[in-house]
Formats: sequence, structure tokens, C-alpha cells
Amino acid sequence: MPPQLRSFIEVDPESPFPIQNLPYGIFSPKSQSSDEGDNSQCRVGVALGTKVVDLAVLAEAGIFDGAFDAVAAFRSPTLNAFMSLGPAAWRAARAALQAALSADGPRSLAGNASLLRACVRERSDVALHLPADIGDYTDFFSCREHATACGTMFRGAANALNPNWLCLPVAYHGRASSVVLSGAAVRRPNGQRARDPKDPSQGPVFGPSTKLDYELEVAFFVGTGTEMGEVLSIEQARDHVFGCVLLNDWSARDVQTWEYVPLGPFLSKSFCSSISPWVVPMAALEPFAAPTSGGSVQDPPPLAYLHDARYGSYDCVLEVAIQPAGAPAPPVTVSRSNMACLHWTMAQQLAHHTSGGCPLRPGDLMGSGTISAATGLPAPAAGSGGGAGGGGGGRDAVGERGTRAFLLDGDTVVLRGYCQGDGYRVGFGDCVGTVLPALDRGEFESDGVQ
Amino acid sequence: MPPQLRSFIEVDPESPFPIQNLPYGIFSPKSQSSDEGDNSQCRVGVALGTKVVDLAVLAEAGIFDGAFDAVAAFRSPTLNAFMSLGPAAWRAARAALQAALSADGPRSLAGNASLLRACVRERSDVALHLPADIGDYTDFFSCREHATACGTMFRGAANALNPNWLCLPVAYHGRASSVVLSGAAVRRPNGQRARDPKDPSQGPVFGPSTKLDYELEVAFFVGTGTEMGEVLSIEQARDHVFGCVLLNDWSARDVQTWEYVPLGPFLSKSFCSSISPWVVPMAALEPFAAPTSGGSVQDPPPLAYLHDARYGSYDCVLEVAIQPAGAPAPPVTVSRSNMACLHWTMAQQLAHHTSGGCPLRPGDLMGSGTISAATGLPAPAAGSGGGAGGGGGGRDAVGERGTRAFLLDGDTVVLRGYCQGDGYRVGFGDCVGTVLPALDRGEFESDGVQ
Ligand SMILES: [Ca+2]
Ligand SMILES: [Ca+2]
Ligand SMILES: [Mg+2]
Ligand SMILES: [Mg+2]
Ligand code: NI
Repeated sequence: MPPQLRSFIEVDPESPFPIQNLPYGIFSPKSQSSDEGDNSQCRVGVALGTKVVDLAVLAEAGIFDGAFDAVAAFRSPTLNAFMSLGPAAWRAARAALQAALSADGPRSLAGNASLLRACVRERSDVALHLPADIGDYTDFFSCREHATACGTMFRGAANALNPNWLCLPVAYHGRASSVVLSGAAVRRPNGQRARDPKDPSQGPVFGPSTKLDYELEVAFFVGTGTEMGEVLSIEQARDHVFGCVLLNDWSARDVQTWEYVPLGPFLSKSFCSSISPWVVPMAALEPFAAPTSGGSVQDPPPLAYLHDARYGSYDCVLEVAIQPAGAPAPPVTVSRSNMACLHWTMAQQLAHHTSGGCPLRPGDLMGSGTISAATGLPAPAAGSGGGAGGGGGGRDAVGERGTRAFLLDGDTVVLRGYCQGDGYRVGFGDCVGTVLPALDRGEFESDGVQ
Repeated sequence: MPPQLRSFIEVDPESPFPIQNLPYGIFSPKSQSSDEGDNSQCRVGVALGTKVVDLAVLAEAGIFDGAFDAVAAFRSPTLNAFMSLGPAAWRAARAALQAALSADGPRSLAGNASLLRACVRERSDVALHLPADIGDYTDFFSCREHATACGTMFRGAANALNPNWLCLPVAYHGRASSVVLSGAAVRRPNGQRARDPKDPSQGPVFGPSTKLDYELEVAFFVGTGTEMGEVLSIEQARDHVFGCVLLNDWSARDVQTWEYVPLGPFLSKSFCSSISPWVVPMAALEPFAAPTSGGSVQDPPPLAYLHDARYGSYDCVLEVAIQPAGAPAPPVTVSRSNMACLHWTMAQQLAHHTSGGCPLRPGDLMGSGTISAATGLPAPAAGSGGGAGGGGGGRDAVGERGTRAFLLDGDTVVLRGYCQGDGYRVGFGDCVGTVLPALDRGEFESDGVQ
């Protein structure tokens, strides 16, 4: 897409949502009396600067030219129907939208005041909703810098990576029901943790997690699904990736350390996982394709079924910022990383995921795993704050509240990510959550040791 | 329910489905031309002997007396709507059904030939479907005998149980998209495994799993859901359990061993998980409540939030039978176990699951983990065949096909379970699957070592 493409709707050069992006989301008009949207009015929109463009209205006006059933796809309370249509429909929709929203060209809507009145809304006049019905949520662990930092803490630098890590994209199943939209409050979980992590024989205590952490991730949505037993090659897999969001996989490190042997994380990561509301299409990221932090050839090469001839990632800056309760805006940036720090590609992740026959459904969510930059650097490059999954010390950078590496009640954590183009940015928008104090479980709490 | 309760529909004493059971399922009439059901005609039924009783028809006939919106609940392609109504509606439905299907009593339909013609079908005339839209599937690891057998293999008898095992019901998130109905074929998965499991530095190979195993489990469906952040006490949790099915959590042990460090099982258990079609209500199991194999008091006692004042399980015989390809029926029983061998109750599992705020949805599936009997016994008491999760040797008992502990292509595995009453059985019916050979991945296979 030529960078000089420009909409008749004015977009700030630092906005994440120029016409080069056009990310999809689900919105509903706010009612006059409240800030809640009318859920029965949910439909698909794209973000453009500070506006939201109603695709149900544009579909009914015929701008998609019958390339697919646009009314059914866009007058829908989730993106699942559109996701299921596959890349030809996604390309047709994007081309039609860019032509319609462009300042120039024969298909520009610039002069169609009545249609624009019907389809363009201020972002502040709508409520946003989860973009998809998420059938299953898988979380990978695909950042080598992060895996190395974690492994070094547990096993020392010589054995940092487990033997399987460089051979397959390690992953686990997350909890689909606990995925929430950016902005939802994040209640600090109660849970079991070891009384003394160094001596598990002392048994557990129950109470509010004392090691609440964030995880900076990018997640993608599966577009077209697969049948049980259907296997995707790497090239096929690429066509099943619909688009990306930011993901904060909030984690209770003390709960995680105690519970995860031998079946993996469970309650430590299923109390809340926040995603940003706008799904950035892969076509919008494509101009920012770049070698990974490990280079443009995967080293070591994986087995043949995972060989990706188009190995690489995207040059997309990722940031974590924290604003403690009562602190002045803006939030303080505590970490900077990049999507290029992913050792496994999305095509590899999906080819692996289906290699044994596991079926995918439109709307499945696939997290990257925490993305940290440059191995061994301190907090300013870590995608999580500390403890079992973290590079350490993220929360410290805020400064005002002492020396704890983990999140405090009232902290607001903001994830941001964008690709810098020539005079514009293709970004995700913010993924935000504020930590609320744990529920009081009264007599059940036994954490007097903390 | 008095055991002498009896239906006007004749039920064999060894049938799993007497009037004391009345398990719920989803069925559709088979069309005249094929064995497939008409999916657009899916609705709720109960099993009674060899019949299926159509609850949509009974709802329209008014037998549920307006206790809940029975037409909406039962003219539905899944049980989710009925599950969401909660225990008062479940009790009302069951009481109305037992009264209507009873041989005697004022509400018996015995004399209502025209209604019976409309609502009673032969099991062979209908197709069965997944009973619920499963939002999330969690698999626990709650059988102490099984956990001890697994742990002994890995760490020796002295350290068999990990430090957390007796303190919380260990679990992981499974893959909801790969849950299938009994009868579906089970394709042997391809996958990565260590070339030499004793020397991971030799790296992986890719090809058909050589250690395909079954797992004998009982799973329950969540009825009413919970909001994010809502915490259930043990007593509240009990009311969220709708009913139970059998679950065969097919597992590729070689894939599991290689992939599961450190985030738990992934593709080794997400290629297929089979459940029996009829959901046995908790009220039907209640007469068979019994102490666990560890006694009627939990030893050691867990933390207060997990203290279950009604600690116990059910006296429900569980069996695994295998019929190799070409072998004569019936399948050979290779293992016998019992639901009493569960150290953690369903109420404890749900109270723990929600303790950090994780939301539940109607239709969520919760597996027990493999249920093996008596610690240290050989295969005849093991709920899985061998390897990483098994007690060992299950497949050997079949005899005809040599000495491998794991499943061969063509093997049909049958899980059965029932509570023996006085002259009747409350059972699950069979959970069946036949192993198909792996897909040929041609050039991608690298398992020449086997
Ligand atoms: Ca994560
Ligand atoms: Ca299992
Ligand atoms: Mg799901
Ligand atoms: Mg799920
Ligand atoms: Ni769903």
C-alpha cells in the first residue's frame, strides 16, 4: 500500500489508526443515558483516527460489491463470520474500504455526505466489545530472549533453554472465558502459594497474590478454521492468520510457581487476560515485515514440517507503561521491546498446532508469549515485571512506590505497539488495565506470613 | 428415589438407562435416506432403556407445568440453556419426567398413546450429538492412586506425589475444540518426540505417535456459570455441577514427554477427547454416594477454602475394554476401577477453579483425570495403558497382538461405567473410539529410528 494513501478524514501522524491500518472491531452506539453500549446493536467497525466507521451501514450501501456476503459478515456481534470467510474476502473488504475512505479516487465517499453521516461515529460515542467469540485460547512461549531470561533464572545460563524449546513452538492452552477487553478492571486474584517457596514441604497459604505481574504479548486471531485431522503446511497456515491484537496475560507468579508442576499454569493465568479492541489485519503489518532479532534464517533450523521459507517477523515497537494510583499522567514507560524478538512465526505456530490434527475455529486466539528484547538486559527491555516469567524489575522503574518488582493495587498498566511508517503509524491502540485489590475471603485467608 | 420406581417402557436390568437415571442428551431424527441426523432438528432427549424420549415434544405438551421455560430449554441444539437454569429447574424437570414416564401414578403418560407416539423413539432411529457447546475444557488430575503410580515411575515411591498434589486439585486447560462424541474415529496423531527419550540432546523426530494411550475419566458439565471475579464456596460449588459423562482423554505419551516441559501437555492431548453422549444428572448418582478409596474424611485436610463437609465420591464401577481389529466381539476388559478413587470432589474442583476469579460458563467440561484403582497394582486396575501417564500394560491384557503396552491401529477402546442398584443400574453407556492409522505426512516424517 503506498504510504501516501490518505483519507478525507483527518488522522494525526501519531494516531495508531491511519487509512493504512483500518483494524476491525466490534462496537455499539452508546445510549443517550449511559456510557454502556446497546449490546443488541453490536456490529463490525474499523477505526480511522478518532472515528469509527460502521461497516454494516457500508455493506448495506453496497460498497463491497457482492465480493462476499458483507451484510451478514458486518451486521454481526462478533468478527467470527468475517474471519471464517478467508483471505480472498479479507482482501476484497480491505481494498473496498481503502478506496471508499481515501481522499481521492473514483470510489471515494468524500462527497457522499449522507452516507458518511450514517456510517462515521466519534470513538467516544460508541462502546467497544470483544472482537470475537473465542472458542479456544492458546498461549505460546516464542520469544527466545524471554525464554532465555526465564531459563537462566531457574537453571543458569548454560542450560537456559529446555531441550525442546528450539525444536517446537512451546505452548499451553489458556482459559478462553477469562479473556476480556482492554479497560476491564483487573482484580488481584486470591490463590494458593508456597508458604516458603524455597521449602515446599512447609505447604501452602491462601490469600491475595503478592506477585502480580503483566506479560506483554501480541496475539493473533485465527481466521478460517480447520477440520479435526486437517493438517496445515506452513504456506497454508499463513492464510489462516486473520490479524493481531495486544495481549496482557496478567500472571500471579507466586500462584504459578506453586501450582504449575507438572501440568502447567492454571489459575495463575486464568483470572484475566486483556486484549486490545482493534484487530490489525495482517495486510496492514506486511509493509513492516523484518528479520527476527535472530536474523532472517532460523537458527537452528527446525524439522522439515516447520521450515518457513518466509521466515521473519515485523518491526513493531512494543512498550509497557505504568501509572501508579494517584500518580500524574502520563504513565511511565518501564519497558521497550519489539515484535522482531519472536523466534517462531505465526505460520509455524499454526502448522505445529494442527500437526497432530487439532481443529481450529474462526476466532481462536493465539498469544505469542511474553516478548522481551535483548537477552540479559535489565528491566527496560523485559516484557514482564519479575519472578517466574519475568526479566525482572519492571515495576521498579516507576520509582515512586519503593523497590517491589511486582504490581501494586491501583497500578494502571498500558501496553502499546506500533509500526513506524513514513509519516504515519500502524498501531494497535492501548491495552489497558487497572489493578483492583483482592476480594476479602475473610476466614479463608491464611497468608499471615507475608 | 425409591428403587422400585419403574417405567411403563420396559428396561433391561443391565441397561444403563432405567427410569432412575434419565440422562440428558442431544439428538436428531435420522433421515430416511441416511444414517446422519438432520442437524437443524437437534433437540434435547432423555435415554430410557433402548428408547429416546423427546423433551421438546413433552415441553410443548405442557408436562413441565411452567416451572421453567421448558420449550426454550429443550427445543435447543445444546443443553447449555437448560444447564444455565440451575438446580431448581433441574429438580423440577427430573420430577416431572419421572412422574410422566412412571408406570403408575396420576401423572403417568402410560395411557396417552398419541403423545407417546410423538415423543418416544428407538435409539437406532436417531443420531446423537455433542450435548453442549463447550466453552472451556479443564482436565484435573484428582485420582491419588493414579498420581502415585505416575509419580513413582518418575521419582520413585518416596517422592511419588509432588508437594502441591495433596494441597490443591492439580489441573490444566484442555482444548475445547477437540472434544468429540463417542463413536468418532480417533486418528493416531503425528507429532514430535525425542529421538532418544533418555538423551534429549539428540533432538526430535516427527512422525506417527508410537505411544498412543487411552485415559479413563469421568467428566462433569458445569450448569450455571459464574461472573469473572465471582468466588464459589464449596456448598455453592456443588449447585453448579449439572451432571457427568465418561471421558477418554486419548494421549500420545511420546509427544507428551517431549513437549510438556515447562507449560504442560499440549498437542499430546488435543487431537481428540471422546465423551459419552448421555449426561447423567447428579441426582441420579446421589443414591450411590460413598466414601472415597481414602476414606470419608480427606487426609490430609486441605486449606479451609477447600474443606468439604460432605467429602466423598460415588460407588461407580469403571471399566476399559479393548477389541483389536479383526478380533471377535466382545471387547476384552483390560482394567476395572471405580469413581471412589478420586481424592478431590467436584465441589472442591469448582471452588478451587473459581478461587482466583476465573469465570465459568454453562457447558464447561471438567475431567477428573485418569482414574486408576489401588496403588501399585498392575494393569488390571490402571485407567491408562502405559507410559508417562499410565499405570502400565493395559493393552497387553488383550493378548493377541504381542506385548506392546500402547494402542495399535484398529483397536477399539470402550469405556463403561455404572452404579449397581437393587435390580437396576445407573450407567453412562459406552464411550467408544477406534484408532485409525496416522495421516501420511510423506517427506515430513523423520522417524526412521522406530
Ligand atoms: Ca503468557
Ligand atoms: Ca487426562
Ligand atoms: Mg473454548
Ligand atoms: Mg477454551
Ligand atoms: Ni463458544
